[in-house]
Amino acid sequence: MKKIAILGSTGNVGTQVLEVVDQYPDKLDVFALSASSNIELLEEQIRKYKPSFVGVFDEGKAAELEKRVDIPVFSGKDASLKIAALEEYDTLVNSLVSLSGIDATLEAIKNKKNIALANKESLVTAGEIIMKEVKKNNINLMPIDSEHSALFQCLNGEDRKNIHQLIITCSGGALRDVSKKDMKNVTVKDALGHKTWSMGSKITIDSATLMNKGFEVIEAMWLYDVPVEKIKVVIHPESIIHSMVEYSDGSIIAQLSDPDMKLPIQYALSYPERWDAPISRFDFSKNLTFKEPDLERFPCLGYALEAAQKMGTLPAVMNATNDFMVGKFLNKECEFLDIQNVIRKVMDEHEIMENPKLDDITKVIKESTKRAEEILSHMKKGK
Amino acid sequence: MKKIAILGSTGNVGTQVLEVVDQYPDKLDVFALSASSNIELLEEQIRKYKPSFVGVFDEGKAAELEKRVDIPVFSGKDASLKIAALEEYDTLVNSLVSLSGIDATLEAIKNKKNIALANKESLVTAGEIIMKEVKKNNINLMPIDSEHSALFQCLNGEDRKNIHQLIITCSGGALRDVSKKDMKNVTVKDALGHKTWSMGSKITIDSATLMNKGFEVIEAMWLYDVPVEKIKVVIHPESIIHSMVEYSDGSIIAQLSDPDMKLPIQYALSYPERWDAPISRFDFSKNLTFKEPDLERFPCLGYALEAAQKMGTLPAVMNATNDFMVGKFLNKECEFLDIQNVIRKVMDEHEIMENPKLDDITKVIKESTKRAEEILSHMKKGK
Repeated sequence: MKKIAILGSTGNVGTQVLEVVDQYPDKLDVFALSASSNIELLEEQIRKYKPSFVGVFDEGKAAELEKRVDIPVFSGKDASLKIAALEEYDTLVNSLVSLSGIDATLEAIKNKKNIALANKESLVTAGEIIMKEVKKNNINLMPIDSEHSALFQCLNGEDRKNIHQLIITCSGGALRDVSKKDMKNVTVKDALGHKTWSMGSKITIDSATLMNKGFEVIEAMWLYDVPVEKIKVVIHPESIIHSMVEYSDGSIIAQLSDPDMKLPIQYALSYPERWDAPISRFDFSKNLTFKEPDLERFPCLGYALEAAQKMGTLPAVMNATNDFMVGKFLNKECEFLDIQNVIRKVMDEHEIMENPKLDDITKVIKESTKRAEEILSHMKKGK
Repeated sequence: MKKIAILGSTGNVGTQVLEVVDQYPDKLDVFALSASSNIELLEEQIRKYKPSFVGVFDEGKAAELEKRVDIPVFSGKDASLKIAALEEYDTLVNSLVSLSGIDATLEAIKNKKNIALANKESLVTAGEIIMKEVKKNNINLMPIDSEHSALFQCLNGEDRKNIHQLIITCSGGALRDVSKKDMKNVTVKDALGHKTWSMGSKITIDSATLMNKGFEVIEAMWLYDVPVEKIKVVIHPESIIHSMVEYSDGSIIAQLSDPDMKLPIQYALSYPERWDAPISRFDFSKNLTFKEPDLERFPCLGYALEAAQKMGTLPAVMNATNDFMVGKFLNKECEFLDIQNVIRKVMDEHEIMENPKLDDITKVIKESTKRAEEILSHMKKGK
């Protein structure tokens, strides 16, 4: 029986993690849950899964929940951190959105817990720091997204020194077929429109700009210790091949399935075992197609590759600015192209610091967010 | 330095094995070579690779060669067997055509040599006997054809108890787009016509009838200890995905590359290492398509699946009859549809013997060949 603590259990990934638990009640035991503010769903989850601890980010909601349940409720911005620091669990499933997950990930690693990581911003922003702790504490960091799970599976049983390149596939996102000219008119609805995958709003916008794919490149660099020059992004609209590894002899190993997040979630929890399929099986009636990504229409992917090349604090700056701008776009407080334009400006202005500590990263995140806000407000005045 | 003995060194696969040796003179050393009768090419190979022993099946040619070279020349039908029994080599590369390779394969296994096996008829005919010896002598049997090499690579690092099914891909062969009605007019030229792969004539005809794919199913059963119910054949005309393994959780691992026999040859010789690519790399400009095989137009695949189900002596009978009939077809002594019709008849007449010994197999091979000859001559008279 594996005891798991799920951060972000009421979100899109968190609820799918619990669906996997439903399939394997004899293999997975829910030890702790946390949510940002949705205490209605969290309460349901508490009654169903009977965790020993819960956490709620929103303090008011936490107080409310405490009256209704008879287990300890951690409250406020340290709630996730407190869960991560608990003793009696095996694996932390981190499905928090954006940057809120870094502290908890690091805490759990130092606590010698295995990590199932859906939060890609952690590695993008603080990859060096996290991977150093992973090695030091000798824990397993399993990726939960389909691409990195695919890469992990394609690397099974292989010697990593034989990697020629990692090939990360990309559905192309909601704006795959939008012309460069029409990009300036993209609405929130357009950008959220096309969903091959069931995902949250933030990541769906990141998929539309291809920033998400850039994050995945950086994440792959850290997870598999491969330089950006050895990572290729290929557009594959059918989302059947989830990623591939090409070896030195020209042999490519690929991982395929119908697109369903439950597969990488289950694999992250079952590894090194494989458990029976919770998903529909690929029927081979689809054709698989590929093309090169268009960096003219999707410059964010290029920015991420640049950040991956230069590293230091630049990925954190890019990610923080993207975080802020996607929030603004989802709130209809800016236009679609503002996302890429502000990211470009903030990245250009930033003086990269090498080998940053967590404090340095926290500092540049704050500065970048502030700078993005200033640039955006200046741009708006100019219009 | 790996010392290799190559049976069938002047044939299509044998010459490609030597091309791999040319790439890695510091890793591969040619210890022995054998050929059927092409002593001109064999003599060239002797001068270039300086083996310690050679063998020639044709006794007259062997005597001729002996005058021209100053190394021992084994002669006659036991030439390959004598090479297999030598002490001072590591790996036997068996690229003999058809049934001539079984004895030598068994001899080398008992001699505790690793095997790189291009000769698929060995496993089809005597899989049970061969695999028993492989286990007993604890040697590596590496497949040289692209499909089984792909399966091997897709099984790397995985627990075989998690196999849901093996998915063997198939280009469809030269007659992929020929209608059922037009099958009766297929000429030798038609059937040899389409070559995605550079292969010998016998295997190209087997690819046209899809018998080759049936052989591969049976071979995969023995190599990976999987029942026929867990093996699926998928038509994939582009020949980029060379085969796949689907696991219990719905995850499919596939192996891809441009079609080039040198990759599986090199892998069989380099394993567990991978050496740099001798082949062109897949550029992702091709679409990958799939469809179900048509057993109406290609009944030989169905016969092979039936033989795989019933086992015992039936695969040997099917293979021997196919061997004989393909020879006749290539010599223009029968029509294309005669191949499948005679195989069907000989299989129908055969009384299956369970757990055959090698002697039993040798006996049914002779009987089936004789019976095929009788049926064919009777059919011809009837016309």
